Amino acid sequence: MIIDCHGHYTTAPAPLWEWRKLQVAGQKPEKLNISDQEIRDSLEGAQLKIQRERGTDLTFFSPRAGSMEHHVGDATVSEAWSRACNDLIHRVCRLYPANFAAVCQLPQSPGVPPANCIPELERCVNQLGFVGCNLNPDPSGGWWKEPPLTDKWWYPLYEKLVELDVPAMVHVSSSCNPAFHFTGAHYINADTTAFMQLIQGDLFGDFPTLRFVIPHGGGAVPYHWGRYRGLAQDMKKPLLKDHLLKNVYFDTCVYHQPGIELLLKVIPADNILFAAEVVGAVRGIDPETGRHYDDTRCYIENATGLSAADRKKIYEDNVKKVYPRAAAALRQAERLSA
Amino acid sequence: MIIDCHGHYTTAPAPLWEWRKLQVAGQKPEKLNISDQEIRDSLEGAQLKIQRERGTDLTFFSPRAGSMEHHVGDATVSEAWSRACNDLIHRVCRLYPANFAAVCQLPQSPGVPPANCIPELERCVNQLGFVGCNLNPDPSGGWWKEPPLTDKWWYPLYEKLVELDVPAMVHVSSSCNPAFHFTGAHYINADTTAFMQLIQGDLFGDFPTLRFVIPHGGGAVPYHWGRYRGLAQDMKKPLLKDHLLKNVYFDTCVYHQPGIELLLKVIPADNILFAAEVVGAVRGIDPETGRHYDDTRCYIENATGLSAADRKKIYEDNVKKVYPRAAAALRQAERLSA
Repeated sequence: MIIDCHGHYTTAPAPLWEWRKLQVAGQKPEKLNISDQEIRDSLEGAQLKIQRERGTDLTFFSPRAGSMEHHVGDATVSEAWSRACNDLIHRVCRLYPANFAAVCQLPQSPGVPPANCIPELERCVNQLGFVGCNLNPDPSGGWWKEPPLTDKWWYPLYEKLVELDVPAMVHVSSSCNPAFHFTGAHYINADTTAFMQLIQGDLFGDFPTLRFVIPHGGGAVPYHWGRYRGLAQDMKKPLLKDHLLKNVYFDTCVYHQPGIELLLKVIPADNILFAAEVVGAVRGIDPETGRHYDDTRCYIENATGLSAADRKKIYEDNVKKVYPRAAAALRQAERLSA
Repeated sequence: MIIDCHGHYTTAPAPLWEWRKLQVAGQKPEKLNISDQEIRDSLEGAQLKIQRERGTDLTFFSPRAGSMEHHVGDATVSEAWSRACNDLIHRVCRLYPANFAAVCQLPQSPGVPPANCIPELERCVNQLGFVGCNLNPDPSGGWWKEPPLTDKWWYPLYEKLVELDVPAMVHVSSSCNPAFHFTGAHYINADTTAFMQLIQGDLFGDFPTLRFVIPHGGGAVPYHWGRYRGLAQDMKKPLLKDHLLKNVYFDTCVYHQPGIELLLKVIPADNILFAAEVVGAVRGIDPETGRHYDDTRCYIENATGLSAADRKKIYEDNVKKVYPRAAAALRQAERLSA
């Protein structure tokens, strides 16, 4: 079993984006009208084709990250848009229960206490069977006006995550700050920033069972692992393995062999979850390898010195631990792949 | 010869910081009064001791980066503070001409066209023999309100850099945004952000001889080298080696062996400059190695598969190419080490 914990519905049918355009324009869009066939067409030649080609089984699937756009409109706009996106993800997962498990977008809004996300989180998890959520540490879209993730501002939402036993992937949306290219700077910076916020605080002292996945291989963190160990030490924090690694996980969205090798060398296998983020930020074929940049399975397969047991942790075991609510989807996928 | 291209005067004598405190308080401070002995005392037990212990020869030395604080006060405040800091660096380099070459702080100020930095840059280079400068892509201190580095906003300063034939290290200062820890997030994010801005633009089409050094091992860039190659490819940009690597260099401020190994593997040796940034962000001893985290020479020495010729490029040859005005200081250091 190979589970990809990080996929977005980047190929959603056109009516979704038209609905959004009307919503942003302040017009009241009609009920979203997308047929099952349109959903199938949007996936068969894209995410499902890639699953088959690369031999992965199940993808944790959430709305397009760049389109969460928490900075657009107010909390009401964000809520209606989140519901529309999450409902569509739910339909995908009902159509393909062995291929996708659902992860939700939260109706965050800049300056609005994140407790406002609890009803949508509960609806998704309790009523629709979602297994996790994406949490945006910067709903302003590149202006970084929210308190750090360790601030009590976020605590009511964390209490609910703990109660529901679902993890959050820390994932920003698009950037409206011209300094930050969204997938090339804002995403990677946010991963790095979030990890450093967690070093500075003691969030998991307060929430020992809260779990965060930091995507894109943890931003700059593994490459600068010595820097982060050293900064924590200068701040008299515990060793990172005790301070953070019982609660923080990194995905494998690193798009070349040496990067993956570094990740596997410095981060314990227990803290790494397989992911590719397809169809996503980088769509081309690497002329140096002849394979897609985002074919991360290939890098894991080719990684030197990775034991079969550790590879299985990364592909399968860890994700079961971090996303316990995915158990039903996993059983479906297992039946199908058996 | 081992040249460290990235050192800051983090240990400057107390009267400098007292002068600054008065300045920020809006009082007119007296002329800065620091004796040669105070300067010697501030260096002998710190940067000079470390040079001797680690066997490095010459450090390119600039004012403390976190104290540039371009966001504090207006352009007049920034100018007076920059002059004071640069004058002190000049005194350091006159006292220890074989150990230090001078790199200047620029009197940037948020929203002020960077052309305002030209007089101080010219004074430092033409009158005081400085060999480079630090350029802050975010003088707002963590709010990122300036146009990208590829914007014409910056061009008058670039024209002067080209005319004087000095490179700029792209280096932010402290962060007043609580989201960003300064050395753990803001510095690393800025490195990543700057590189992505350069991918998006075509700055070196306009300035074929302009040279930037991206510190801290290039932020997240080498770890995500596949992502950056892939993003450039999706944007129909040339290969990064043609698009940027004739003009952009990375230093070696990466504080663990696997990070340095990755840097050496993915970035051509021609684009790597030795640096440690001492006394700097991380001051402790790594319990895993028994050495200081920031003893980067040790990682370079231990790097597997690095040829003697490439090591010499990183320690010495590249810096001569990137900082041609350091030739005189290099001759001094060579005489002394001979």
